[in-house]
Parts: sequence; structure tokens; C-alpha cells
Amino acid sequence: MENQQQQAPQPIQCKAAVCRAAGEPLAIEEIVVDPPKAYEVRIRIVCTSLCHSDVTFWRMKDFPGIFPRIFGHEAFGVVESVGEHAGEFAAGDAVVPTFLGQCSECVDCRSPRSNMCSRYRFAVRPGMPRDGATRFSDAQGRPLHHFLGVSSFAEYTVVDVNHVVKVNPAMPPSLACLLSCGASTGVGAAWKLAKVEPGSSVAIFGLGAVGLAVAEGARICGASKIIGVDINPDKHELGKKFGVTHFINPKELGEKPVSQVIVEMTDGGADYCFECIGLAVLMNDAFLSSREGWGKTIILGVEMHGAPLSIPSRQILHGKSVIGSMFGGVKPKQDIPILADKYLNKELELDKFITHEVGLKDINEAFDLLLQGKSVRCTIWMDK
Amino acid sequence: MENQQQQAPQPIQCKAAVCRAAGEPLAIEEIVVDPPKAYEVRIRIVCTSLCHSDVTFWRMKDFPGIFPRIFGHEAFGVVESVGEHAGEFAAGDAVVPTFLGQCSECVDCRSPRSNMCSRYRFAVRPGMPRDGATRFSDAQGRPLHHFLGVSSFAEYTVVDVNHVVKVNPAMPPSLACLLSCGASTGVGAAWKLAKVEPGSSVAIFGLGAVGLAVAEGARICGASKIIGVDINPDKHELGKKFGVTHFINPKELGEKPVSQVIVEMTDGGADYCFECIGLAVLMNDAFLSSREGWGKTIILGVEMHGAPLSIPSRQILHGKSVIGSMFGGVKPKQDIPILADKYLNKELELDKFITHEVGLKDINEAFDLLLQGKSVRCTIWMDK
Repeated sequence: MENQQQQAPQPIQCKAAVCRAAGEPLAIEEIVVDPPKAYEVRIRIVCTSLCHSDVTFWRMKDFPGIFPRIFGHEAFGVVESVGEHAGEFAAGDAVVPTFLGQCSECVDCRSPRSNMCSRYRFAVRPGMPRDGATRFSDAQGRPLHHFLGVSSFAEYTVVDVNHVVKVNPAMPPSLACLLSCGASTGVGAAWKLAKVEPGSSVAIFGLGAVGLAVAEGARICGASKIIGVDINPDKHELGKKFGVTHFINPKELGEKPVSQVIVEMTDGGADYCFECIGLAVLMNDAFLSSREGWGKTIILGVEMHGAPLSIPSRQILHGKSVIGSMFGGVKPKQDIPILADKYLNKELELDKFITHEVGLKDINEAFDLLLQGKSVRCTIWMDK
Repeated sequence: MENQQQQAPQPIQCKAAVCRAAGEPLAIEEIVVDPPKAYEVRIRIVCTSLCHSDVTFWRMKDFPGIFPRIFGHEAFGVVESVGEHAGEFAAGDAVVPTFLGQCSECVDCRSPRSNMCSRYRFAVRPGMPRDGATRFSDAQGRPLHHFLGVSSFAEYTVVDVNHVVKVNPAMPPSLACLLSCGASTGVGAAWKLAKVEPGSSVAIFGLGAVGLAVAEGARICGASKIIGVDINPDKHELGKKFGVTHFINPKELGEKPVSQVIVEMTDGGADYCFECIGLAVLMNDAFLSSREGWGKTIILGVEMHGAPLSIPSRQILHGKSVIGSMFGGVKPKQDIPILADKYLNKELELDKFITHEVGLKDINEAFDLLLQGKSVRCTIWMDK
């Protein structure tokens, strides 16, 4: 159904990949997408991709795992219609939705130090941020839950204006899509959060899309030593494309701790250590690998088992610090356009993140590729 | 024995407060202090004071607890004689010794980001930093161990040039003494490490000398809300003198966690939370009391039981950070003169730290006062 200009938007019937139960393959279903309410836009998704956070919640049996649900939060699309008070957008705008919102008015949004909007706080809700309700229903009229305010595994989705960022239409859709989550998180963590300096040393624990994006960010910032740590040996060659200068496979070290290897390689410890997996033991490894005096450990991974971050309390007294962030410290509406410009200026290389592509009907292949560690990003095209 | 100008310095016989066994009262003994070797100066201590780190090591039965030892590391004195390659100093210089050294040449000393000299690394040694030997012997000629490279509970001591800072002779001795450790640590932590901004909110866990110095530093930096947390109710009135605007006694809260009280008082959490005791549970309380977005937790306390720093890993992702430091990030030779100037310019108030004074012979009273929480700083005069 096409958008009817000048008239109030109507419900749209379209296809979506619906997850009916934890860990089960997604099913392509006909769904109905409600019109956008106030402060909302409806987006025609052009392409989306699969991120580890989708997989984490796809596996989750208990709340905030909830089903049936439409996953997906890394995407590019075009505004199809807008609700009231959404005058910031118009039909036809090229946009990326973001799981992190930005109201641009609260004390956090106005501060350069924070990307955590305090007016509409981040939370993993099953519905829309303002009214908590869903805009999706299945062929039987039963509600389908949202995911991270985006739910991009659908031909159309409704997103709060705080979670939508206009991007330069010159950006190729599959690359703009990467700025919606993974690439921005990793590049932002090196560029904005850690503020990696030219000549510095960086260690990255986990060379998934976020870890590789950290490497790409560190490369752009001029780091001279970028150490990748991963138990998948295929990441050695792959890492080189993203600026990784040294590779460590912890499985090949015998009894020697990875932190000791990094301390030796960097003559005292890396300036910046990034944890991109979400395991407390790696957070500690990263901390132990950071140098005394000014070593920063940057936590990007969501701890898989809810374990605490636990590090030697006396060692932090030697001038070390630990900082955590969602979305790499990126303020969506401010920084995604900057990252797009960095791509268009040939500074930021995004093409290399995309290793596969499929059509929506084959979305489960994207899950298999990610779970097997074979893909960095698999573009899922809606019209293929 | 007086210093003999123009001649090589000779051993000096003088008085010192010697600790013979863990936890036992100090005994005033006649000792012999060797002449300074190369890169060393011998200092006539004018006054010293007692810091919690002295007490921690005084109680310590196992290594690095070691006896007999001369404690004391917060002091003011006058250079009595200098060894070879100590031309930076001359007899008569007003100086403070510091437990943290600064070679001024290594990559850390040259960087504004670090105060952890990497050429001569900080360590709790029983002897001098370069040769590991002692410069003290007792009346029977048996060696007495050093403490933190300072050992100021003696009329004379030998200190490595990296651990000596010249101060403006206009500084009153008892106040210059405070810059040797406690006041610099706390003020430095607010001023240099946290970089507290005007209008910000600060929570301080533990209102000992370091915690009160954090308050003083935060006051100077223009913090508008300075919350002191202490289980000693006497610290309520005392804290006010140092700029503490709100006081919380955790014992009076019932079941309510102190972090919840601070989050409510600050409308979301304090901008800066300082742990000044050295207990892992308080480090976590401080972290939980810091605001999302940009809240910084600053660890100054040495964990008493060696417990790890353990905090919720998912909460750090909300834009929080934890940073630790020795000596509050102060670079001794660079920053102590700046702090002295701040005192002389009537910006930094030091007089209020001194609550008691005794002569060397009554040094055990200083221990009692500190252990009972009655003193902030007790000046121990060598000539009284």
C-alpha cells in the first residue's frame, strides 16, 4: 500500500520476519503496521542487518525477552509518512533509525559529555517509547512486540522521532545502515569516547563488527599499534583490512595470560583497551592489559551472564581508568551525519564491513552466518 | 651534630620514633643517619604528621610490613646536606619529601596525563629506591627499615632527589607538611584528576583528611553540592568547614542504601563520587551514586582487605566511568608548588586541617587521636 499524500496515513499491510519464540527461526508473515502517532514517523525499510544484540534477545526466554516480536535495529530507510509534531521529517527523507534516542533538549542531550538522553531514558521495552503500545499486528490482528524502538525486520516500521536520524542521500543504503548501530558504536568508541591519539597503542578484545569498527576508528585516529584479540583464527586476516597490526589468539598462548603478552608487546601496556564481547573475564583481561599512568579500558560489550565488572582495586590506583558506553558515546543526531561525512570524504571505510547479502525471505541465513562467525555484516535487502 | 659545610657529610646521631613490631607503640630511640649517597639529600625534619597509610603498614604483620622500621611520609624539612648529583638542592632549601617520586625525564613524567614515574616505579620497599639499602641504624648498629622512601618520624632522614620538592619558604612548616601527602591527594583528586566544574555535584565517601581535602578541592573548583558520607557523626560539623554542604550518616538511613539517598539528592546521581576509605563495598556505593551519562567515580582509598573493585557491568555502559589514582594525580615537583601558591593566594585553606599538635616524644598520642577519629591532622614537631 502506498502512502497517500495529503491524507491521514492509513495502516499498511506488508511483510515482516516475525520471531514467535526464543531461539526459533524467524517466519516471514504478512503484518499490519499502524500509522505513525504524534512524534512518530513510519519508515519504509530499504535494508537492515543483523547485530549481536538481536541474537542476544532472540535467545532470551524470560523478560525482557518477549514474543512474538519483530527484531532488527540496524537499518536504513525512507520516511513514508509522519505523525503530528514530527515536522522535523518529511516523506522521502533518507534516514537511519537508532536504538538510542536523542531528544536534543534534556541536560544530557545538551551536554557534550553524555549520549544518554535523560528525558526519554534508554530501556528495552516491548512497545513504543512514549505510550508503551505496539504499532504492529499479525494477520489475525494479534499484537507483535517491538524491539529497541526500531524493529527493522519489516518492510515498514514506526519509530519515535527521537530515534530517527536524517542521513545524506548520497550514502549507499547498505553503508548508511551500518551507521545505525555497529559501525558507529565501534568507530565512536575510539574517536569520541577514548579519543585515541596518533601514535597510541590499542588492544581490542573481540573482532566482531564492533571490534573491527573500533580498529577502523583507531586507524582513522592514527593509532600506531592496533592489537586484535580473538579465538577465531580467521579474524587474523580479516582484521588486517581494518587496520589491525598485531593479532593474538588466546588459544595459542598456552598458560601465558593474554594481558602479559599485550604488556610485553606495548612495553608496559596498551594506552586503550576495548572489550567488545561482553564477558567479565575479558573486561578484567582488558584492564590488566592497559598501561599504568593513563591506560583506559573501554567497556562496550553487554555482559552475557550479568556478571559484575571485577578488577584489582589496587591496580586502578596506578592511574588507570575504566569507562563504559552505549553506542560508543555517539549522539545519534549529531554524530551519525559526521560519520557519514567521514565516509563520503573517504576517511572512514565502510564497504569492508559487508561480507554477505540476502533477501528478507532468507533472513535466517544471516543468523547462521553470524552465529558461525562467518559474516561481519550481512545486508538484508527488503526488496530482494 | 651540625652539618659541616665544605666537608663531606658525616653520619648524624639523632632521635627517631622507631616501630619495633606490628601494632606496637613507637619508641623514641637514638639512631644514626648515614650521609646522603649520590642522588640523595639528607633532610632535617621540622615537622611531620600521621597519615592513614602509616597506620595501615604499622599494623601489617607480613611483608611489606617489616620491622624495625621508621614510619612517617608526610613532612616538612630543610635540606641539611646533599650527595653527588643532587645539585638541584642545596643545604638550607625548604622542602617536602613525597612518597611518590618524579624523575621528570621518563615518558610518564613528561606526559601531563600521568603521575606514575615509570623509570623509578612506585613500590613499598624497606630501603632506598636506588640501592634498596637503609641509611638508618640503631644504637647497636643494627639496620632500621625505611618507609615509602621518606621515614619522617626522625629528626633527620635521607631521601632520593626524585622524592623531594622545594617549597616556597613563605609557607608555614606545618602547612607545607600537609602538601607532602594528604591535602595534595584530596585537593589534587578534585582539581587535577576529576576536574570538578563549577556548579557540579560531588559525593565524598569518608571524611578523613583526604576526604576533607577532596571537599576543599571541590569547593575551590566551585562545586555547588558537596555531600559528605561518614559513619562518624562528628564529621557533620567538621565537614562544613571544608565546604561540605550535605551530610549523610549511613547508620541513620535504616534499610535505605546511601546511593539511593544521593541519587535522590542530586536528581539522578552525583557528577563526581570519591571513595576515600579503601573498602570495596564503598567503591560500589560510590559508583551507584554517580549519575548516568557522565558520572565519574574516583578511587583514592587502598582496599583494606585486598578485595577487588566490583561494580555492575551493565550500569557502566550507561556512560559512567571509574578512575583511580595515587596522590590524587598530583605530579609532586610540578603541582605541589602550585598548591603552595594557591595557599599563599588565600585560595586554598590549609589551617583547618590541623586539629592537634604534639612533640616527637608524644607521637603515640597522634596515633591514638587518628585511630579514635578525633584528629584530622596532628602536627608532630621535632623540636618540642
